[in-house]
Amino acid sequence: MQELVRVAVDAMGGDNAPAEIVKGAVTAVNARKDIKVFLVGRSEDVQRELSKYTYPNELVEVVHAEEIIETAEPPVMAIRKKKSSSIVVGLNLVKKGEADAFVSAGSTGAVLVGGQLLVGRIKGIERPPLAPLIPTKTGVSLLVDCGANVDARPSHLVQFAKIGSIYMENVVGIKNPKVGIVNIGAEEEKGNALVKETFPLLKECKDINFIGSVEARDIPAGVCDVIVCEAFVGNVILKLYEGVGATLISKVKAGMMTSLRSKIGALLVKPALKETLKSFDASQYGGAPLLGLNGLVVKSHGSSNASEITNSIVQCVQFKQQQINEKIKEKIKVD
Amino acid sequence: MQELVRVAVDAMGGDNAPAEIVKGAVTAVNARKDIKVFLVGRSEDVQRELSKYTYPNELVEVVHAEEIIETAEPPVMAIRKKKSSSIVVGLNLVKKGEADAFVSAGSTGAVLVGGQLLVGRIKGIERPPLAPLIPTKTGVSLLVDCGANVDARPSHLVQFAKIGSIYMENVVGIKNPKVGIVNIGAEEEKGNALVKETFPLLKECKDINFIGSVEARDIPAGVCDVIVCEAFVGNVILKLYEGVGATLISKVKAGMMTSLRSKIGALLVKPALKETLKSFDASQYGGAPLLGLNGLVVKSHGSSNASEITNSIVQCVQFKQQQINEKIKEKIKVD
Repeated sequence: MQELVRVAVDAMGGDNAPAEIVKGAVTAVNARKDIKVFLVGRSEDVQRELSKYTYPNELVEVVHAEEIIETAEPPVMAIRKKKSSSIVVGLNLVKKGEADAFVSAGSTGAVLVGGQLLVGRIKGIERPPLAPLIPTKTGVSLLVDCGANVDARPSHLVQFAKIGSIYMENVVGIKNPKVGIVNIGAEEEKGNALVKETFPLLKECKDINFIGSVEARDIPAGVCDVIVCEAFVGNVILKLYEGVGATLISKVKAGMMTSLRSKIGALLVKPALKETLKSFDASQYGGAPLLGLNGLVVKSHGSSNASEITNSIVQCVQFKQQQINEKIKEKIKVD
Repeated sequence: MQELVRVAVDAMGGDNAPAEIVKGAVTAVNARKDIKVFLVGRSEDVQRELSKYTYPNELVEVVHAEEIIETAEPPVMAIRKKKSSSIVVGLNLVKKGEADAFVSAGSTGAVLVGGQLLVGRIKGIERPPLAPLIPTKTGVSLLVDCGANVDARPSHLVQFAKIGSIYMENVVGIKNPKVGIVNIGAEEEKGNALVKETFPLLKECKDINFIGSVEARDIPAGVCDVIVCEAFVGNVILKLYEGVGATLISKVKAGMMTSLRSKIGALLVKPALKETLKSFDASQYGGAPLLGLNGLVVKSHGSSNASEITNSIVQCVQFKQQQINEKIKEKIKVD
């Protein structure tokens, strides 16, 4: 029998907790037999939601956590003070080896800080990056870092390139993934101080497939598989993706309603369009892993619904089965 | 009689030079009687294109410039060595007061460097930013800086906020424009070192309408009129806008071609959709002015076609008539 992948899920995190979180977790265990979920949160609330569904009882366990960390709370303080919060209890399950992964749609800051303080970094990893998959014209690319380490140094970006490559090769299945650094021009001499310092270091790396600078314009076209950047820039990329997409789609919809002719047309294109836009929706690809920790921590979008939580949970299986952390350890040890 | 606004136009700059540049210039002078254009470039090439059109002869003058600065050339060297290039000759017309403005779709680096070296900064302006208008759900916002000053300091960003406000109020006509700083969270304590240092300085400014942090997600919704950021981030925003838009639109088009039903629908929505997408196309709003120089320098997109060049030229009229530079001088003197 295949080994179970044990995922602790923050039942209280995000705008739609606990209802959508519980629903997403139940869907994950019903969809496949190799996942066991620990739902971490106020047991009364969680049980009430669980009672709405049927699922294999041995694959869902409720772990009580009395407190909730709010998004507005300063992260370091929250992790230190709220020992019985769903985030701290969930991360401790990973720390103690009782779970392989922790998934949360709660406070990003608390998950990042807690992941580093409680689960801890793999030896040699300087700064674990947050690395979501973003949709492109041709598939997906990994954006490292999208928010964990503002004002990073060149050596951090080099590690992002290496562990991002391991992730894309083994979790997404892209052989010899192309690595690009976000820049404001294609030439090597372009860029800010950080990029100019990092570029030659990436060029020297023999164990990655570095293709040079990538301009933001070309990211959605899918020109590289691993997009390396400092967290402030990565966060702007991730959020602007979402913002431009949402505004453009609402404009397209409004535009179709301007005449009777276009209204009829809109009815006819609706199903096809829905399918297309779904493929360009970042939430389809699960949450963002915080790479380089002694265990897997996945941050799901604050507005996650059940299907996004399911995707985030299922993502953990591939991560565990492909032994990503072992591969990262091996790579960092060699350097 | 109204005073003519004299615009020098780089006839050799950009992917579609000289044909589209000349066409755009002729369209501008034919559209309104208050513009005189100097077409700067190889006179033989320019005259050949000009011979295709009719226009008031006294409103178009060809100024010969033998050389062309290529996009790949290092900007400082190019400006120094190629004294008879269209960019240097055009900028010198502004310097000598023979033209009010210079418009180019050529090398961004050369235009930025040349603008500062030849036309010169307004006294007190530390770093002139490149500031394009970008489309939003509700209208347009000004993005300062989108590429002129990487690794800027807090004092630069404060000036961007002030001169951006003057531009939006007087050229676009938005009273008391809302100013936001690009950040990775809404709270004041969020951000990288630059943003954390700049935020309190902007809060102290009594002469701007500072509304705080703006997340990239909210930029396309039009939450603020003046978007302040460091050039690397601004460049990523501008180019990703373009990239996500282009990819999404091509996906929508492909999506509509997936079934007979949706193909028929596509025919019906096409005209309405075209109009909508046009309103979300950054090129509709003319080029990006380099603000804070002793004269107006406008950088148009490298792939500019005739209508973008026309828009860039027409933009100069409002800038001149509203005496933007006089207002900037007044503001900087007071500080």
